[in-house]
Amino acid sequence: MASAGTPKAIDLSHHLNKLSLSRVASPLKDIIKYMHEPGMISLAGGLPNPSLFPFGELKAKVYAPETDLRSSEEPSSPIQFSIPKYAPPYHKNTLSAALQYGSSYGSARLSSFIREFTSHAMTPGFSDFEILLHSGNTDAWNKVVNILCEFGDYILVEEHTYPSSQALWVPMGCKGVPIPIDKDGLIPEALELVLKNWDQTLPGIKRPHLLYVVPVGHNPTGATLTLGRKKAIYKICVEYDIIICEDDPYYFLQFPPYVLQSQRTKEEPRPASELDGQAYVDSLIPTFLSLDVQGRVIRLDTFSKTLGPGSRLGYFVCNPLFAERILRATEVTTQAPSGLSQAVIEELLISWGQEGYLRWLLGLRDSYTSRRDWMCDLIAKSFDLVPSPANIVDDVVAVQKGHGSTKDAVPYFSFSFPKGGMFVWIKLYLPCTSTYQDMKATSPSHETATAKWAEAFWMDLIKEKVLLTPGSYYTPIIGGINERMPLEPDVIFFRLAFSFETREEMQLGIERMANVFERWWS
Amino acid sequence: MASAGTPKAIDLSHHLNKLSLSRVASPLKDIIKYMHEPGMISLAGGLPNPSLFPFGELKAKVYAPETDLRSSEEPSSPIQFSIPKYAPPYHKNTLSAALQYGSSYGSARLSSFIREFTSHAMTPGFSDFEILLHSGNTDAWNKVVNILCEFGDYILVEEHTYPSSQALWVPMGCKGVPIPIDKDGLIPEALELVLKNWDQTLPGIKRPHLLYVVPVGHNPTGATLTLGRKKAIYKICVEYDIIICEDDPYYFLQFPPYVLQSQRTKEEPRPASELDGQAYVDSLIPTFLSLDVQGRVIRLDTFSKTLGPGSRLGYFVCNPLFAERILRATEVTTQAPSGLSQAVIEELLISWGQEGYLRWLLGLRDSYTSRRDWMCDLIAKSFDLVPSPANIVDDVVAVQKGHGSTKDAVPYFSFSFPKGGMFVWIKLYLPCTSTYQDMKATSPSHETATAKWAEAFWMDLIKEKVLLTPGSYYTPIIGGINERMPLEPDVIFFRLAFSFETREEMQLGIERMANVFERWWS
Repeated sequence: MASAGTPKAIDLSHHLNKLSLSRVASPLKDIIKYMHEPGMISLAGGLPNPSLFPFGELKAKVYAPETDLRSSEEPSSPIQFSIPKYAPPYHKNTLSAALQYGSSYGSARLSSFIREFTSHAMTPGFSDFEILLHSGNTDAWNKVVNILCEFGDYILVEEHTYPSSQALWVPMGCKGVPIPIDKDGLIPEALELVLKNWDQTLPGIKRPHLLYVVPVGHNPTGATLTLGRKKAIYKICVEYDIIICEDDPYYFLQFPPYVLQSQRTKEEPRPASELDGQAYVDSLIPTFLSLDVQGRVIRLDTFSKTLGPGSRLGYFVCNPLFAERILRATEVTTQAPSGLSQAVIEELLISWGQEGYLRWLLGLRDSYTSRRDWMCDLIAKSFDLVPSPANIVDDVVAVQKGHGSTKDAVPYFSFSFPKGGMFVWIKLYLPCTSTYQDMKATSPSHETATAKWAEAFWMDLIKEKVLLTPGSYYTPIIGGINERMPLEPDVIFFRLAFSFETREEMQLGIERMANVFERWWS
Repeated sequence: MASAGTPKAIDLSHHLNKLSLSRVASPLKDIIKYMHEPGMISLAGGLPNPSLFPFGELKAKVYAPETDLRSSEEPSSPIQFSIPKYAPPYHKNTLSAALQYGSSYGSARLSSFIREFTSHAMTPGFSDFEILLHSGNTDAWNKVVNILCEFGDYILVEEHTYPSSQALWVPMGCKGVPIPIDKDGLIPEALELVLKNWDQTLPGIKRPHLLYVVPVGHNPTGATLTLGRKKAIYKICVEYDIIICEDDPYYFLQFPPYVLQSQRTKEEPRPASELDGQAYVDSLIPTFLSLDVQGRVIRLDTFSKTLGPGSRLGYFVCNPLFAERILRATEVTTQAPSGLSQAVIEELLISWGQEGYLRWLLGLRDSYTSRRDWMCDLIAKSFDLVPSPANIVDDVVAVQKGHGSTKDAVPYFSFSFPKGGMFVWIKLYLPCTSTYQDMKATSPSHETATAKWAEAFWMDLIKEKVLLTPGSYYTPIIGGINERMPLEPDVIFFRLAFSFETREEMQLGIERMANVFERWWS
């Protein structure tokens, strides 16, 4: 909880763009004010009468929060709840309300649950933070860019960045400013360098004022920012007056460090004392929001990774001014998220309670930890993993199986064991392959050779029936529609997801991948 | 159904704005292509595994389509359906799919139901129309404006227009071009005049290329366009190359003509033979879509008025190019509508079937017809209604109760009996009130006096505990943020909704309204 001395957000209105500053509140607010006066008969509303909605009741069977998700059996003893059409006033959730037009704020009861949860699990650094529902982080990022950015603005992004997030702003004439990252996420010194030298590098061009960052289990690299780096980045953003958009869908999927299978103690059922929401919350690296004493962080939270993306439901945590401007935009664009999604998620969360929801997240975290372990174990099974030399920042280098102890083992790829999220990010070292040397000899540039090699290798993986995501998909766009950041020569990247496939499928996939590596490095 | 000779949409790509032309497809489309190859192991996806969604089953109790909505009792014999988490392949609707990320197209099964329904109930005039789900008509209109309009564009609108629709484009620097309307909707000759004289009136300014129109039960005026007018408007739009955005939430709420209660035969249960979906469809005034042989109509349909607005679910019917550009925008903004909304509405519609859905709409139409009748009957009870003189286009003029047959009855207001929708629109004649004469004497202009009178009268209605919506809320914005179309002097408007209140509440409201009129006209 925020302590008594927690400051309020400072005035950041100079960050708002023209579009956002031009929005006015609907005149209908006067109608709403008078509508609720006692004894008033309103012929002003225009809402359909709920007796004309063809729904009588919605019932859901949901998992108990303590469900062991690592078990392959369907969970027993589910919780059941019902959302009736009409209900006495003490029953807060009805279909007649869920199916009606609602305020663009969304459900007050759901927002209030989220506010309590956020206060406790994140302790925002400013006291007047607001919760505003949205329809998932894609919707949310669209709304952030549309209140802050003008045509042609530069936006600070990680040097590998989520493609949908940039596909939004590229047609708006915006450009990415890639900031180097490593396994611990965005590098503060690199950020500072860009900002310090901005006026020399691009004289006359407006300095970026928005940083887009995925701080935990970064998509695609799996990197998780350390607390030290978060503090350093926040300090730089204060100095250079940058708004931080903290897109954090994987926040509750922070894992304990990976331990090689051979060194791991057999997995025991977790003792009851460890199933402690508070200990879990305390184990999480604090958010940018928690460090933010000025209200310059716009946090995007979503239920997509924790309850199901199809709900299209999430929420902003941000300062009151930004929340109000986003609300004005929401009224005339998306309106509130689906009332059915709100009603179902609200009832689920309130059935579970605050502690129950934390338990669920903890169980989910354990489940994704197992999946992370599966994938890392399987890579270790199909390749030999050796410690990285000094010039490689990743945790380990993968070489041909059985060659890990030979002195001249040739590196296939390096990677780090993810501390959060859903992805392993591998970096391939091409110079040791003869195919790459041949391509380099016949290509006009290193970059062309690298791209050509990447395409051929990817197609060979597909021929072997294993599909990875090419790292080039995540390259920031720094100029016109097709002008991407120049690729690092001699290396390429792939993203491997451990979120979906079964262990058996994963094993098959990694084995096939190993076959392709052996062919191309032979 | 479209006949064999139905033409395809013509090329209308010159209407797209820069933003829309700059959008590119996601590289992830290649991933999706390969993902479904037989035997492929995909580590590329990054979807959460559905075993980690905490939902086991969703069950709904819904009304039968033939439910008599005019009965005050809760409908008996509901239909029940279940959406299980997993299911055999022949069961098409599962929570594991509904809660997962989905294509921005939305559910293919739901879209296919809607396509069949649209083909039958609307017979689009061009053969290659597409169905694309959206999150309600507010979302849809936002997407239309954002593929077609540049900053500062003029948009053709009805002279009383829906406030949320213009609150979207006003901050985008767009301006409304108000086109006169009467009880039969937008006047074609007035539209043609504006377009014909455009270059003389506003030389050097780009002619509008988008018409926003609510053709049935227009909000706020309740006007419904005749087929003749629709044909004339379509012809003009072809001539001047205008895209028509047909925002038609009330299409299925088209009523038979109003008959005074005294002349009405007692309401009998409708004979079974009349409960005929085909006869109902045939009774509806054809849509702009059905007249459109070029693909220049973008039709916005929604379940908000027919199943419940909280579902935040509707669909575009438009040409393939516009659908594809809207889809590209959807991918990076809202994504598909809520999967829960889609799953529930899909199952409801498929349980009902095509004929069942038409029956439901017919029942709903009957219910709103009764509500229209309630309100018109109640106005006739609290006021005397006399035929309009030649200079008033409305159906009737309301005068003081008991004075309808006196020669010198003073007009309070005129109105027309709505043929669709949810609203009665009344036009008040101020010159006969002494308060207005006083205000005119002390005001700098007619317009100031009118606005002052409107405010005072509205506040007196509120004091009497009846709330109406001031007509001025619907005045188009023609210049900067606050520059509205000049108000017609000596008259003001109010909108009365008959969609929500009970008959008893409506009666009380109208009686209170009559009290206020008597005071102000005495």
